[in-house]
Amino acid sequence: METVNIKKLAQLLNLSIATVSKALRDSYDISKETKEKVVALANELNYQPNPHASSLRKHKSKTIAVIIPEIANNYFTLAINGIETVAQEKGYHVLIYITHEDFKKEVSLAKELYNGRVDGLLISVSSTTTDYAHLHHLQQKGLPIVFFDRVCDEFETAKVTTDDYESSYLATRHLVEQGCKKIAHLAISGSLSIGNKRMKGYQQAVADFHLPASQSLIVECMNDDEKDRELIKEMFLKEKPDGVFAAVERYAMASYDVCRQLGLQIPNDVKVISFSNLPIASFLNPSLSTITQPAFDIGKEAATRLLNTLEKKNAPLTNESIIFRSSLIQRTSTSK
Amino acid sequence: METVNIKKLAQLLNLSIATVSKALRDSYDISKETKEKVVALANELNYQPNPHASSLRKHKSKTIAVIIPEIANNYFTLAINGIETVAQEKGYHVLIYITHEDFKKEVSLAKELYNGRVDGLLISVSSTTTDYAHLHHLQQKGLPIVFFDRVCDEFETAKVTTDDYESSYLATRHLVEQGCKKIAHLAISGSLSIGNKRMKGYQQAVADFHLPASQSLIVECMNDDEKDRELIKEMFLKEKPDGVFAAVERYAMASYDVCRQLGLQIPNDVKVISFSNLPIASFLNPSLSTITQPAFDIGKEAATRLLNTLEKKNAPLTNESIIFRSSLIQRTSTSK
Repeated sequence: METVNIKKLAQLLNLSIATVSKALRDSYDISKETKEKVVALANELNYQPNPHASSLRKHKSKTIAVIIPEIANNYFTLAINGIETVAQEKGYHVLIYITHEDFKKEVSLAKELYNGRVDGLLISVSSTTTDYAHLHHLQQKGLPIVFFDRVCDEFETAKVTTDDYESSYLATRHLVEQGCKKIAHLAISGSLSIGNKRMKGYQQAVADFHLPASQSLIVECMNDDEKDRELIKEMFLKEKPDGVFAAVERYAMASYDVCRQLGLQIPNDVKVISFSNLPIASFLNPSLSTITQPAFDIGKEAATRLLNTLEKKNAPLTNESIIFRSSLIQRTSTSK
Repeated sequence: METVNIKKLAQLLNLSIATVSKALRDSYDISKETKEKVVALANELNYQPNPHASSLRKHKSKTIAVIIPEIANNYFTLAINGIETVAQEKGYHVLIYITHEDFKKEVSLAKELYNGRVDGLLISVSSTTTDYAHLHHLQQKGLPIVFFDRVCDEFETAKVTTDDYESSYLATRHLVEQGCKKIAHLAISGSLSIGNKRMKGYQQAVADFHLPASQSLIVECMNDDEKDRELIKEMFLKEKPDGVFAAVERYAMASYDVCRQLGLQIPNDVKVISFSNLPIASFLNPSLSTITQPAFDIGKEAATRLLNTLEKKNAPLTNESIIFRSSLIQRTSTSK
């Protein structure tokens, strides 16, 4: 006999796995009509809930896991401090796992959570993650998951992010206002949702202000400092941009280095602005103009959503996007 | 009947718990004479090894825990990257726990490891830790522990550190050579081994070069950025030092801020040098002279020691200190 699991039910009903799972748990955010349809088919096919999944839900380790792509990054360290503030208040421990932008490692870390070691998961996915089966599997087992910063758009749960598209548009427009005529973008490689949004914000501003839109003005960085510096240097030599918008603070620092090597003065020869949570941006030479995300608050919000669900079993995570606004802080690196 | 455990044996023999434990495991770094004494008493009193402890040793989770005091710190992020490099090579997962310099949290995190969740522990203790019973307890249960950076000197195991005393002496002497006549020290509060060593290196240099040695030239920082800035500002206003040696990079950044507030020019009015692993120290305004620890290598070494023990059961951790040398990198903040 074929096993009837939630996935099978979802396929037959043409619904998402999350919707079926919630309908079976009588969640308040599923319509009565859908619930009836799901329950009817489940009864008809003699569906039995996975006993391991319910034991997972009952097991209270008072621990949550946080999976992040890297640790030498001020955004993530601030977000973790926000997460820990909330966790500490509610008596939860926090385990931190680092994927080093490696999809395989992310999958294998997710597997470690199958055994009920933690009560919930906060995750910012790796830049090489394109398949989310490992996370769907955890969710099916009853583990509540909240995404922050790097989210999977089609996953039905709470996602806490910033206004990446708008901020990137603003950053690029700011460079135009400061007199830049040819703006390069140091982009996050891969298919990350935030990478795409930052790219699109830049491209829209480039189009709106009739700037050169050559593909070779866009550097897809590799998360390898040395290689990134080479790629950025090549682009500088070829395109001679007068403005640079970096999607990640590490790329901005690589630009500072390349400008120094090439004898270019910031901001006279090139202006630089970057997404950054560097606490000492104002002490850089020259001080760095930034798009600063409320990383601490984002961590707090993600943790609050997760812990509210863990503490009150009748409040499952709903499918919503919580978007925080970033601020543009002008400093010397984009002065006229 | 009273239970005879390792602690009891240690008391009766007037030996350390670690020594008794190793003697019973026939460790090669315990003398034959001691082993015979321990085994004789253990037999006489009918000592039975704790079954939980041996199960702990047998249980292979292929996971190690790293306990660190803070995350927004370039030293620790580099050390973790070093640890992860080794762990990844050998197929181990790494769990990171943060104590936020809180002794109670450190104890409660250590308790989480009692259940055999991990195979070994790398730890850098919190600045408020003075009692090590929670770690002795883990060691007794058979969990291998390696210390790095912030170590407990009397703990019998491998400890990986840097030459804190010598580096602090060199940093202070460097300020003297650059013309400083009155040098302040921004110190780590509490009773940490590294705090004491950095303080002593500074004090010895102050004595050797006949500089003013007022207690009010020493600021014991609190790990609260705002309070630390106030304390440093007070000291500047009262003592008017022409040199500052910071034990932690965060205190150096606080000095930059205070100097800006007070209209003091670095390096003309005050010279600053700091322990630091800031990757962008050379991009600061002015660029910061640093004592730079090989944090990545320290992490690698600590992890290598631990994993060698886990992989080969006959090679227990011996009581030794592995000391890496730091480098003094002169930049503009200490120019003449």
